[in-house]
Amino acid sequence: MSTTYTVKFDIAPEPVEVPNGTLITDAALKAGIEISQPCGGQGRCGQCAVQVTSGKVRRRSTVRLSAEDVAQGYALACQTVIEGDVTVVVPPQDKIQEHLTASQFASEVTVPRGYDYTKVQSIQRIPLTLSPPSMEDQTSDWARLKTALLKAANLEDAHISLPLLLKIPAILRESEWKITTVINRENFSDGIAQVIDIQKGLTAEDKPLWGAAVDIGTTTVKVVLVNLLTGEVKGQAAEYNQQIARGEDVISRIIFSTKENGAEKLRELVVKTINNLIAKACRRAKTKPSQVYKTAISGNSTMMHLLLKIPASSIRLAPFITVVNHIPSLDAAELGLNTHPQGIVDCLPGVASYVGADITAGVLSSGMDDTEKLTLFLDVGTNGEMVLGSKDWLVTCACSAGPAFEGAGVLHGMRATEGAIDEVWINKETYDITWRVIGNEKPKGLCGSALISLLAEMLMTGIVNKGGNICHSLNTPRARKGSHGGEYVVAWADETQIGEDIVITDVDVDNLLRTKAAIFAGFTVLADSVGVPVEMVEQVLIGGGFGKFINVEKAIQIGLLPDMPWERFQFLGNTSLKGAYLALLNYNDRKRIADIADKMTYIELSADNRFFDAFTSAMFLPHTNMSLFPTVEESLKSLRET
Amino acid sequence: MSTTYTVKFDIAPEPVEVPNGTLITDAALKAGIEISQPCGGQGRCGQCAVQVTSGKVRRRSTVRLSAEDVAQGYALACQTVIEGDVTVVVPPQDKIQEHLTASQFASEVTVPRGYDYTKVQSIQRIPLTLSPPSMEDQTSDWARLKTALLKAANLEDAHISLPLLLKIPAILRESEWKITTVINRENFSDGIAQVIDIQKGLTAEDKPLWGAAVDIGTTTVKVVLVNLLTGEVKGQAAEYNQQIARGEDVISRIIFSTKENGAEKLRELVVKTINNLIAKACRRAKTKPSQVYKTAISGNSTMMHLLLKIPASSIRLAPFITVVNHIPSLDAAELGLNTHPQGIVDCLPGVASYVGADITAGVLSSGMDDTEKLTLFLDVGTNGEMVLGSKDWLVTCACSAGPAFEGAGVLHGMRATEGAIDEVWINKETYDITWRVIGNEKPKGLCGSALISLLAEMLMTGIVNKGGNICHSLNTPRARKGSHGGEYVVAWADETQIGEDIVITDVDVDNLLRTKAAIFAGFTVLADSVGVPVEMVEQVLIGGGFGKFINVEKAIQIGLLPDMPWERFQFLGNTSLKGAYLALLNYNDRKRIADIADKMTYIELSADNRFFDAFTSAMFLPHTNMSLFPTVEESLKSLRET
Repeated sequence: MSTTYTVKFDIAPEPVEVPNGTLITDAALKAGIEISQPCGGQGRCGQCAVQVTSGKVRRRSTVRLSAEDVAQGYALACQTVIEGDVTVVVPPQDKIQEHLTASQFASEVTVPRGYDYTKVQSIQRIPLTLSPPSMEDQTSDWARLKTALLKAANLEDAHISLPLLLKIPAILRESEWKITTVINRENFSDGIAQVIDIQKGLTAEDKPLWGAAVDIGTTTVKVVLVNLLTGEVKGQAAEYNQQIARGEDVISRIIFSTKENGAEKLRELVVKTINNLIAKACRRAKTKPSQVYKTAISGNSTMMHLLLKIPASSIRLAPFITVVNHIPSLDAAELGLNTHPQGIVDCLPGVASYVGADITAGVLSSGMDDTEKLTLFLDVGTNGEMVLGSKDWLVTCACSAGPAFEGAGVLHGMRATEGAIDEVWINKETYDITWRVIGNEKPKGLCGSALISLLAEMLMTGIVNKGGNICHSLNTPRARKGSHGGEYVVAWADETQIGEDIVITDVDVDNLLRTKAAIFAGFTVLADSVGVPVEMVEQVLIGGGFGKFINVEKAIQIGLLPDMPWERFQFLGNTSLKGAYLALLNYNDRKRIADIADKMTYIELSADNRFFDAFTSAMFLPHTNMSLFPTVEESLKSLRET
Repeated sequence: MSTTYTVKFDIAPEPVEVPNGTLITDAALKAGIEISQPCGGQGRCGQCAVQVTSGKVRRRSTVRLSAEDVAQGYALACQTVIEGDVTVVVPPQDKIQEHLTASQFASEVTVPRGYDYTKVQSIQRIPLTLSPPSMEDQTSDWARLKTALLKAANLEDAHISLPLLLKIPAILRESEWKITTVINRENFSDGIAQVIDIQKGLTAEDKPLWGAAVDIGTTTVKVVLVNLLTGEVKGQAAEYNQQIARGEDVISRIIFSTKENGAEKLRELVVKTINNLIAKACRRAKTKPSQVYKTAISGNSTMMHLLLKIPASSIRLAPFITVVNHIPSLDAAELGLNTHPQGIVDCLPGVASYVGADITAGVLSSGMDDTEKLTLFLDVGTNGEMVLGSKDWLVTCACSAGPAFEGAGVLHGMRATEGAIDEVWINKETYDITWRVIGNEKPKGLCGSALISLLAEMLMTGIVNKGGNICHSLNTPRARKGSHGGEYVVAWADETQIGEDIVITDVDVDNLLRTKAAIFAGFTVLADSVGVPVEMVEQVLIGGGFGKFINVEKAIQIGLLPDMPWERFQFLGNTSLKGAYLALLNYNDRKRIADIADKMTYIELSADNRFFDAFTSAMFLPHTNMSLFPTVEESLKSLRET
């Protein structure tokens, strides 16, 4: 017989009973409380701290808690077990903001020129008027339906599942032999279709036929709802991936997935997120999720594994192996999506553990697989993934750039939401700074684009040197010595929402340097691996939400992007979502993504000594080898001379 | 608020509470008692009679009950509703006998000459030794497995389901990259396979790979368990179809299937029967159902519909339409079979409501679709199905012959089980009779083969005339006048197990005449429809369990079979099971059955005036047109002359 204890959470209506040794996080779940664990419950982030106000607990770890905190009863919920009747106070959770970027991303998706759904859309709706059976024509119901369908849709063969077959006799007779079928042509060109729905009556030809394109980002999930007949986007929605409460990055989530029920929990969270978004987009388009017959899903390899509950632990550990890159077509019921149960769910293919469907979809939407021009495609997020090539060949790599440009690992870093400074300008005489804030309010912190600009401005004005050290001997109170070396004050406490100075420190600069160095070293190795000098690249296409806000000039100045004429750079926006949208609409594009995945040669950087050398060389502003950045060298010279 | 009453069944441990107006059968079910309803609860057969010893009930119908029965409280359970607290006595149910014919039917199935499973078996077991992943080889688990599989099995492509995909990483790593896959090549020739199982370790090449062939008869279900590597039958089992308690014939079962939960109940019963038999056959072969990877199922169209819970009511009513004849391939889990959950279940195709997979499988196993000889294939059961043709064309029809030859509709008729007289001889001088009984015991009744012989012997000895009337003026106490016209005593009461005279009556003879006339009329119309005289038929192949025991001479004498030399007749045994066995083993045979089904032209007799004419002409012994039966005419003449 095991002992059980009563746990009372201040924010739960009822106390819960749990066995001796239960983790506080598990007890909280039982009480209906989800305590945010951005590190995935590893006891690293300290975000799950709660206050035990009475009773006995045992702390396995107190990382990030001071002795004083512990004296006050604070404990890491993911590392503390219950050993008596206890009372727990849960501090207000950081509410995950719903930052609707719908208007931003929907405008990025445009209907492909000349889209003709009858020629390229695998989902088709075929109305059929059947002749009723008679003693002279005793054809079976299914054969009757099939014969009419093959003729009407010009098909070779058609299949049907048993559950749908069972419904045929009633539908045919109740509708007096006038029906509308919805079919899927998995391999559009082979003339074989799967019947996925049969509706009573003849549906009007111009009634919308719905599909959804989904981009599962580690941070944000986005959905566009599309009328497959016209290709038009009629609804959209975006919100944070609910998995975020179980780990901010893919590594934390993989760790969480290996815990008991962790994989199922993560699957539920992302499916819930997608279902919410589809429902929301459907409301905007005045339709229902059950009317959505096809969903094309893009996302990195970890997101795909977690969506399908495929064990992901081999992604995290050397030699970094996915279980699967090309996922078979599924139906919505199998996945738990709220769309039509027999609706097709097409998870786009990836290439490797850290080059997923988001990148193959990105390559498709960038068109780099179809151009003669030597192209570099770049998607910067937590990882920096990049692809070099053209229609003849494609090489790819991923560098664990770290999430510095997403605001993590930087003291006052934050995501690009309201209150984030997103652009800065420094006066080279006074070292004074002006900035722009998202939402035009008082600033809370610095988002990625601001960090790039800030670093570039500091370099150009001499506040930071090539080695990344902040000079605190300048004639300004903004550059000063802080507790961890030099720091520069971006905003004074009274100008902010947070009531303290917003600064950038030597430690922050070092983190940003590591990130940009990893990305630049990635280019170097990719180019080197195919024997092409970086400067021969004819266009640089930048995908990802982050990319859109990068100031090219500044990014070149800090050595994040290669030094080449600005007109060679293009920002493509959310290429992962765009690729999913194209694959949703056009069977040929769907096939093209598979071809892209097959064609891409993946280079593993962590096993490549060239990468370490290139990384070390890039750990300067902009680079140790200034000849790679001639225009920056020029600017620096002219600025310093004036 | 509805009134409820207490019902106490003598054989149930506890009384049950039911609402006013509940049928006794439903109350019994609630008490855990299954009252046999051979007519499907239509109130026609009288088999569900129970005795209400106290309390108020209302009888909707009292068919087959005498006024005296009713006075004693007897009531039809399927037609009587409860209107008060009642006590019910359930008479001992006819226990459905398990008549194991395993040894009989297993011997019929022989391994096809030159069977080479690597060339024709769609289920294959492929052991694979994979090279582990490394930083130099980061192929995904599935791609690694698939590449090795395609090479080892010489395939173009391979697919896998999500549930199996999820298991790959653990299996590969725990087995140290040595595994055995089981694949299914649905279209053997296209080089595409579905992985249906992955086992740890390398399985020995000669370890059996199991499949099952199933014949779902309306009465009996038979299973043979086959080692797919060699084709050998290693286990077999047969028992009554458990659906029989819900209706003896297909019509009664269809009616039952339209009642609330009726279809689900029938599905459960037949699935339970099949699972029992597979388990039994597996025990005999010292293996487990979960090791069975493929099941080929034959049976008539109603049996197939009920197995899959496909609404069957359109089969019963004009214009007699099936929902589907070609059922898609299913997996065992979908169907509820106890074999390997991803095991393939292949339901063979039929042609029409009353020409099902049992007949297409029969045609295959008869080989008539591959011969130059004009062949008549005949399967006599409750219906008489027949096929005429050769390799160039096939026509088919079904005549509702009625179940007279199965013992129904005949006063002392019974199935061919122990205690049944199965052969008789009548002395033409004394009109005395000798007989043979199955099991060498005292007789209980007459089975089909005995009825044919008896009718022929009575005709030849003048006990019955051409019109089917029993002559009761003969010098024998055996031929006498009974309550319904003439009758002939086959066994005296003291010679029997039943304590009464076993007789055949004018009514019985009339029923038998109808049956044989329907079958003969079937031939006539089939032959007529293609313009071929019946006598041009070069061989008559007779399938079905019943066929095996027919005495050709006698069957010709009564005009059941056409008058042609005996050497043209062949008895093939259970051709439905044989066909399923062949389809289980050989992909080409499976395809051939589909071709046979496509090729067969179905002629609906109930819409054909020629059938009524031919039927009327055949309502004599042997026929009105004696020129069709020259040898019988000859025998009759010579017998009467001596």
